Amino acid sequence: MPDLIISGGTVVNATGTAEADVVIDGEKIVALLAPGVAGSVGLVADRTIDASGKYVVPGGVDAHTHMELPFGGTAASDTFETGTIAAAHGGTTTIVDFAVQRYGERVQDGLEAWHKRADGNCAIDYAFHQIIGGVDADSLAAMRSLVDEGITSYKLFMAYPGVFYADDAQILKAMQVARDEGLLTMMHAENGPAIDVLAEQLVAQGKTDPYFHGVARAWQLEEEATHRAIMLADLTGAPLYVVHVSAKQAVAQIATARDAGKNVFGETCPQYLYLSLEEQLGASSEEYGAFEGAKWVCSTPLRARAEGHQDAMWQALRTNDLQVVSTDHCPFCMKDQKELGRGDFRAIPNGIGTVEHRMDLLYQGVVTGRLSLERWVELTSVTPARMFGMYGSKGVIQPGADADVVVYDPAGHTSIGAATHHMNMDHSAWEGFEIDGHVDVVLSRGQVVVDDGVFHGRAGYGRFVKRGLSQYLV
Amino acid sequence: MPDLIISGGTVVNATGTAEADVVIDGEKIVALLAPGVAGSVGLVADRTIDASGKYVVPGGVDAHTHMELPFGGTAASDTFETGTIAAAHGGTTTIVDFAVQRYGERVQDGLEAWHKRADGNCAIDYAFHQIIGGVDADSLAAMRSLVDEGITSYKLFMAYPGVFYADDAQILKAMQVARDEGLLTMMHAENGPAIDVLAEQLVAQGKTDPYFHGVARAWQLEEEATHRAIMLADLTGAPLYVVHVSAKQAVAQIATARDAGKNVFGETCPQYLYLSLEEQLGASSEEYGAFEGAKWVCSTPLRARAEGHQDAMWQALRTNDLQVVSTDHCPFCMKDQKELGRGDFRAIPNGIGTVEHRMDLLYQGVVTGRLSLERWVELTSVTPARMFGMYGSKGVIQPGADADVVVYDPAGHTSIGAATHHMNMDHSAWEGFEIDGHVDVVLSRGQVVVDDGVFHGRAGYGRFVKRGLSQYLV
Amino acid sequence: MPDLIISGGTVVNATGTAEADVVIDGEKIVALLAPGVAGSVGLVADRTIDASGKYVVPGGVDAHTHMELPFGGTAASDTFETGTIAAAHGGTTTIVDFAVQRYGERVQDGLEAWHKRADGNCAIDYAFHQIIGGVDADSLAAMRSLVDEGITSYKLFMAYPGVFYADDAQILKAMQVARDEGLLTMMHAENGPAIDVLAEQLVAQGKTDPYFHGVARAWQLEEEATHRAIMLADLTGAPLYVVHVSAKQAVAQIATARDAGKNVFGETCPQYLYLSLEEQLGASSEEYGAFEGAKWVCSTPLRARAEGHQDAMWQALRTNDLQVVSTDHCPFCMKDQKELGRGDFRAIPNGIGTVEHRMDLLYQGVVTGRLSLERWVELTSVTPARMFGMYGSKGVIQPGADADVVVYDPAGHTSIGAATHHMNMDHSAWEGFEIDGHVDVVLSRGQVVVDDGVFHGRAGYGRFVKRGLSQYLV
Amino acid sequence: MPDLIISGGTVVNATGTAEADVVIDGEKIVALLAPGVAGSVGLVADRTIDASGKYVVPGGVDAHTHMELPFGGTAASDTFETGTIAAAHGGTTTIVDFAVQRYGERVQDGLEAWHKRADGNCAIDYAFHQIIGGVDADSLAAMRSLVDEGITSYKLFMAYPGVFYADDAQILKAMQVARDEGLLTMMHAENGPAIDVLAEQLVAQGKTDPYFHGVARAWQLEEEATHRAIMLADLTGAPLYVVHVSAKQAVAQIATARDAGKNVFGETCPQYLYLSLEEQLGASSEEYGAFEGAKWVCSTPLRARAEGHQDAMWQALRTNDLQVVSTDHCPFCMKDQKELGRGDFRAIPNGIGTVEHRMDLLYQGVVTGRLSLERWVELTSVTPARMFGMYGSKGVIQPGADADVVVYDPAGHTSIGAATHHMNMDHSAWEGFEIDGHVDVVLSRGQVVVDDGVFHGRAGYGRFVKRGLSQYLV
Repeated sequence: MPDLIISGGTVVNATGTAEADVVIDGEKIVALLAPGVAGSVGLVADRTIDASGKYVVPGGVDAHTHMELPFGGTAASDTFETGTIAAAHGGTTTIVDFAVQRYGERVQDGLEAWHKRADGNCAIDYAFHQIIGGVDADSLAAMRSLVDEGITSYKLFMAYPGVFYADDAQILKAMQVARDEGLLTMMHAENGPAIDVLAEQLVAQGKTDPYFHGVARAWQLEEEATHRAIMLADLTGAPLYVVHVSAKQAVAQIATARDAGKNVFGETCPQYLYLSLEEQLGASSEEYGAFEGAKWVCSTPLRARAEGHQDAMWQALRTNDLQVVSTDHCPFCMKDQKELGRGDFRAIPNGIGTVEHRMDLLYQGVVTGRLSLERWVELTSVTPARMFGMYGSKGVIQPGADADVVVYDPAGHTSIGAATHHMNMDHSAWEGFEIDGHVDVVLSRGQVVVDDGVFHGRAGYGRFVKRGLSQYLV
Repeated sequence: MPDLIISGGTVVNATGTAEADVVIDGEKIVALLAPGVAGSVGLVADRTIDASGKYVVPGGVDAHTHMELPFGGTAASDTFETGTIAAAHGGTTTIVDFAVQRYGERVQDGLEAWHKRADGNCAIDYAFHQIIGGVDADSLAAMRSLVDEGITSYKLFMAYPGVFYADDAQILKAMQVARDEGLLTMMHAENGPAIDVLAEQLVAQGKTDPYFHGVARAWQLEEEATHRAIMLADLTGAPLYVVHVSAKQAVAQIATARDAGKNVFGETCPQYLYLSLEEQLGASSEEYGAFEGAKWVCSTPLRARAEGHQDAMWQALRTNDLQVVSTDHCPFCMKDQKELGRGDFRAIPNGIGTVEHRMDLLYQGVVTGRLSLERWVELTSVTPARMFGMYGSKGVIQPGADADVVVYDPAGHTSIGAATHHMNMDHSAWEGFEIDGHVDVVLSRGQVVVDDGVFHGRAGYGRFVKRGLSQYLV
Repeated sequence: MPDLIISGGTVVNATGTAEADVVIDGEKIVALLAPGVAGSVGLVADRTIDASGKYVVPGGVDAHTHMELPFGGTAASDTFETGTIAAAHGGTTTIVDFAVQRYGERVQDGLEAWHKRADGNCAIDYAFHQIIGGVDADSLAAMRSLVDEGITSYKLFMAYPGVFYADDAQILKAMQVARDEGLLTMMHAENGPAIDVLAEQLVAQGKTDPYFHGVARAWQLEEEATHRAIMLADLTGAPLYVVHVSAKQAVAQIATARDAGKNVFGETCPQYLYLSLEEQLGASSEEYGAFEGAKWVCSTPLRARAEGHQDAMWQALRTNDLQVVSTDHCPFCMKDQKELGRGDFRAIPNGIGTVEHRMDLLYQGVVTGRLSLERWVELTSVTPARMFGMYGSKGVIQPGADADVVVYDPAGHTSIGAATHHMNMDHSAWEGFEIDGHVDVVLSRGQVVVDDGVFHGRAGYGRFVKRGLSQYLV
Repeated sequence: MPDLIISGGTVVNATGTAEADVVIDGEKIVALLAPGVAGSVGLVADRTIDASGKYVVPGGVDAHTHMELPFGGTAASDTFETGTIAAAHGGTTTIVDFAVQRYGERVQDGLEAWHKRADGNCAIDYAFHQIIGGVDADSLAAMRSLVDEGITSYKLFMAYPGVFYADDAQILKAMQVARDEGLLTMMHAENGPAIDVLAEQLVAQGKTDPYFHGVARAWQLEEEATHRAIMLADLTGAPLYVVHVSAKQAVAQIATARDAGKNVFGETCPQYLYLSLEEQLGASSEEYGAFEGAKWVCSTPLRARAEGHQDAMWQALRTNDLQVVSTDHCPFCMKDQKELGRGDFRAIPNGIGTVEHRMDLLYQGVVTGRLSLERWVELTSVTPARMFGMYGSKGVIQPGADADVVVYDPAGHTSIGAATHHMNMDHSAWEGFEIDGHVDVVLSRGQVVVDDGVFHGRAGYGRFVKRGLSQYLV
């Protein structure tokens, strides 16, 4: 007798839908049945969830989070516990967080530290990418062990000189190792040295408000770095995944590379689909004045709606020039954190908290006709799972898969705001957003972790996922 | 008790694989079960097919065939009976054939005639596109009834003046109707009037061999017509599907349109992946001399390998600039048919017979690393089913789908040639091709129609499929 | 003793300027002298024109005029006499008009008729292109004599079915002859059959105002035809010159072709630089109501400023993606002519009169920083002369050249309007335009034909110029 | 009475030719006369050069030379004396050499040193660009004085870390100054840090022959840097001139920028038109073995002919995607100089000597139909003069211009080789090249400096040219 049947729902995968009951036993999906079959063969489960009129979708995979990330003298405000509980509330059942190595540190130490932070604290399953913040002989050697550790992707930064920055010589060497080992190179593609010049000049001119964060990080410098990363990847034969793409011109570079048959991939985030330089970074409030915009200081920055970047991101999701939507979840409170940058935007911790809202925000794109239902699932679950070597267990509703399942109600409604969210933030970057849909039930490996907005899971339930090689490369 | 379980195989869908048993009852797939589940719940079927070590894939959907097509004073040599039996042998379980309306004829009459030809004669399921060979007020009005008839796509020709040719005014009007009705416009994109000038000049110069068929149909004239069709579609807002793309420059036009977010799609055929102007159209044999090339006279023509078209087609399949592989199956015997064009390549009936070999020929691309296993299934079954409004019933292994299933053995082997094929042709365009894989069992709506090369079906079993609107449009 | 010295001016050629005296004897420039040299060698002329502080530029070459063109039951309102006098007033000293052959007529007859119209009536020199309005065996044969007649370019129309239209088969044949003979193919690149469908539909919907002329002639149909012409030219190896380009997307096609090394050239006209669909075609006046827009009905049409076409034309002039500015001078009066199209924009004679203002309107681009001084001369005189095989005699200030010279005063001013212009039109398409410059003196082969706005020439002075092959092809 | 008349020749400028006598008085051209005019006005000169049947062209302007450049522990083998004498022999009458500032040095000192080297030693006129090898506050301040010094262009290096390399922050700052001051930024566009990684790896693998110099400097790294420079220029609004372009993909980046209306320019050199990785860098000889290739070690490197770079350079000269041909003259002898790199290609001094042969080598492109006669003059004299602010004095045959004139005989012949050249090199990179033309007479400011291969000038005759701002910017 299986543990659970989700019955009567519409199962959604990347290429279409099926009316089917989903049978779960232990941690796994063990069967998909046409309606009525369960009864006709006498299959009864301990529990049945009625999903009539609802979508049954694979649990979300957020491939880009930064729980507890130290940044600019403070740290991201969500712990693995608070962050994963928030994720679960939003229908995300797997996160891939970034273990950090900085220049002068050992990769192994950084990874071990990350395991310590996450181990025993996560409400849902988690995996790691490895940040290589200092490329040298030691870290290059350490990269060769990552695949065995279940870490099959790593990230380099073309921005943040003095913190995470890798120069072109370092990038080249790292990509050579990546190509040999099968690691996927994730790239923060912004020309940091040039940005720092512009930022310093703006501050020197007294332009210190959050808005100028967006001015300093000009689209030309994202486009440039994206192209540079593509060419270094081309030279080495390494596949490339560009994180948090926000400039339409960067998308064009990715599209050109893909048309030429290169293994180049791109991710964007909800903030680049909905928010803008003018409206958010340039916002003013009674409470904070022009510093209000600090809530939306992240890198790459929000871009000018007048230049059409947001529409271009939606289109690229449709044309598959971008393949994944992650959150780049990196929350900071205004108090004591964002406020560090009053008087100098350069000191504002970079990051927005979205891990709880990704599935909802993208579903709203289905409601408004921006995306098909299947594409919603593909972008938020199927492709991130494939891209990062977890598909089969994650990212799909089929026998043998982990029973990470979301029952999503298209007739429900969700209001987003700081008063109700579960992330550890004193504000919401998404305050006032209304979603015409609702996460009803969330299962993680067969366990109901969220039911009608109530958390039934526990910190420590989530397991580390040793990932295989990317399933998206030829 | 279900009728059949296919057990122990690897089910392949577009985004990944699953180890699962496929349970079939009547015409439908009713369940997918993780290994061992059937036993544990006491599920027993009348019959079990052991698929251990084999792929279980959705039956092939060949979206472009021309059974019995009248052409140049003769007719395609496969009837719906011979052609669908051959298709079944090759793992294709649905064909979409083209009902024909010619200038001066009524669309309804052409469609009725096609129903008569197919009805009671097909071994597998079949559907129709409608050729509109004469765009006028009557045919435009008739187009408005097609969706109700289950015919949700129609085809225009920019080639063959005096036969099927539509001029730009006609194309524009037809596309306007298509946009209103939700019909997908399929386009034979070659500049026919220009081709006819070149062909006439070549013949006047004594260049009458089959090779010159390929010379007359220059790539510039495919690229041009492809672009023209895209712009007329852009102007009207109608989606566009370009058939039998063979020139790399035409692919580039399609890619540009898709990058711009246009609903433009493209199909290629096995002949454009493997065969070439130099090797096949320019072939010479003891039996036929330089007329040997007549076996490969088709339009669009085979293109020069020295120009890289074949590699470009493979790449476009990988980059999704082309989405479907069909056959454009249109077989003619050399004797009495192709031979009509001795001394004037213009009189050679245009067409190659491939309906039996598509799944095998594309699988060989998996063997050689050109495609992933998932992409093979996507190109040959999933996407044609979605593109032409049949997905859910066809194109997928999931509960509720028609039990159109192929058990494919990657350890098997297939030799292709006229001595063994089932198409009604006195030669094979694919003589000597060897495939590192084998179609073991083919089910059509739950019935085994082919088992280990033996046909167990019957003409007349196949049903007409009323198709829904394309599931591929936004 | 020479006849004339233009002293003290700044001679402007395509690559730079020189302070130099221009010495003229008879019809020719015989010397260029550094300042002071004339005096030091005792050179005295019969007459001296003081050009101090002024530009001395080669007389304008307007490569696209239609004097007396029959169109839609009426004829262009300027005769060769009125039109060339107007041209002279504006600093244009050579026009290239279009001799007309229509379907069913002999090319030779059309050319002879044109010679008769112009002979003895022109105030300045003139040459002819040949319109081939009916491509058939006779006209193709006649094309082979054109170079001997001094007519080294001919024009085809992809628009105007039933009048001038050539289909793709005809274009291909004509281009083959052109390639063999060295003729330059000029193309009216708009998809006429498609335009006619749209126009008919608009009229059927009661959308009959001049504005809808611009709607019917959508940019997609100019872009499409431009690309088609480029590909047919590519196929035949014939060079191509696209006339009156107005859509930015058509420019993009030309730019792509040129980057690929193809001999493709493009011309635009002042109306596409300054005027727009919204402002002019959509204009309304007390006198004419919404029919006011008829003044600006021309083909290709004025395009939407909101879409950025005008800026794109200016940029293309700067980047050399377009090489020539002609007028497409084809004037019609409102009374009895444009008014034929009240109630049906299709009956409005197509054309705008600009032959008098081209040099001024383009010079204003120098004033506003759109163009350099040299580029002004290059676009309006040097390149048209080279493109159409007259350079050396025309298009340059150097010894041996025809003394076609304009003294242009950058400190002068010109107000444009129907009250003062010399064209035979009852209105001006340029009413109210103010130019920060002035045509002071105009010489045609050594004779002052205009001096400070007063005409000193005579009808019949102008000679037919037998042109050589284009000097712009590799 | 003027000093000199060059009579009977064909004067060639950028847009066409004229049959004209060129009258010279003192250092200047004072008149151009139609044939016969001199006689008819009684003009007699002290000396007449008969140029019948020959071309009279403006003296060549070589905008990229490195006389005496210190490099890798040695120095370029031509002094300003030997180099300018050689240049004169080849019809080049102006060079623009690069004054050098290195990191830690003062710009003023570098410039002063360069003046000292050149002053009193040049046989022809010379000007300077300024290399900024170390961008810091001092050098940025110094850049603001350059225009006053007559130095209106400066060069940065994206290659040669530790020597001349500027990082992106430095480039950005320098370009900001350049934009403000009107300086033209010249860029050595290769990704030096990445090249150094590849070079080190090759050497570590024992791949030390000159051939691997070309392998290490992969085209991807030229394309990348070219794009990066374009984007930094776009960001700052500074115009950009890319030196010694050799990769077709770099040309494509430049073409894209130019099509978008950006002020981006490009130069190539004769070596990239004629020579290749396979044939020259990979050459082997009895004398030197595989080290023979050292003769052609230069950066950017010679590229693979199999990849089509050479044809692409010729095409780009024709399409104006590249505007200037300079030499990058930087000669080193094999003995004691190139030989420093035996056993490690990284130690081979980079450079090829061509200053003597540029006009001839490009003229051969006219002979073979690659270029028009006018384009030859435009690329080698007119445009470099305009680009670098000398046009009017240099780069044109017109009254008022410096009498820098070359009489070029298209019926002559020139054999190139070390035995006959005048450069201070023990070998020739062009050994065995045969030219179907000949430099007959060379005038520098009115003085015959070369006549039929005999040098009549003197070191010290040449003057420093204070240049104006680029005349090529909008």
